[in-house]
Amino acid sequence: MARVVVDVMLKPEIHDPQGEAIASACRRLGFGQILGVRQGKRFELEIGGSADDAVMARIAELAAELLANPVIEEFEIRAP
Amino acid sequence: MARVVVDVMLKPEIHDPQGEAIASACRRLGFGQILGVRQGKRFELEIGGSADDAVMARIAELAAELLANPVIEEFEIRAP
Repeated sequence: MARVVVDVMLKPEIHDPQGEAIASACRRLGFGQILGVRQGKRFELEIGGSADDAVMARIAELAAELLANPVIEEFEIRAP
Repeated sequence: MARVVVDVMLKPEIHDPQGEAIASACRRLGFGQILGVRQGKRFELEIGGSADDAVMARIAELAAELLANPVIEEFEIRAP
């Protein structure tokens, strides 16, 4: 059994109003060192068997289809 | 300038219907090795200055207040 993490973030050129709202709130609460916040999604997948290259490639396909919107998001897959 | 990542996940004992829906979709698409999926949030914070212990402690406070709901979620902070 293996655990694979897929991190999905908005592409850098896509505006992130949620992240900006959080950054403003942090500054309002007195933490002025916050320059910016980006909000994304994290998926933890539990896999039967080992996370070999074939499995990671299949997860990349599923991530592009189910977990991320490739038009506005990018994703990163890793077996921690 | 430093980058700090805050991962927010539902506590293990909290039911995650979104994650279950994704796991079912993966299996329907022929990827039967998926045993389970948990969905969470990922925040990338850009910090002015270095991510020293005092800054990380302040981020932990803000995470508990703004980013996570400590009743049902747990979070992890790291400076990658």
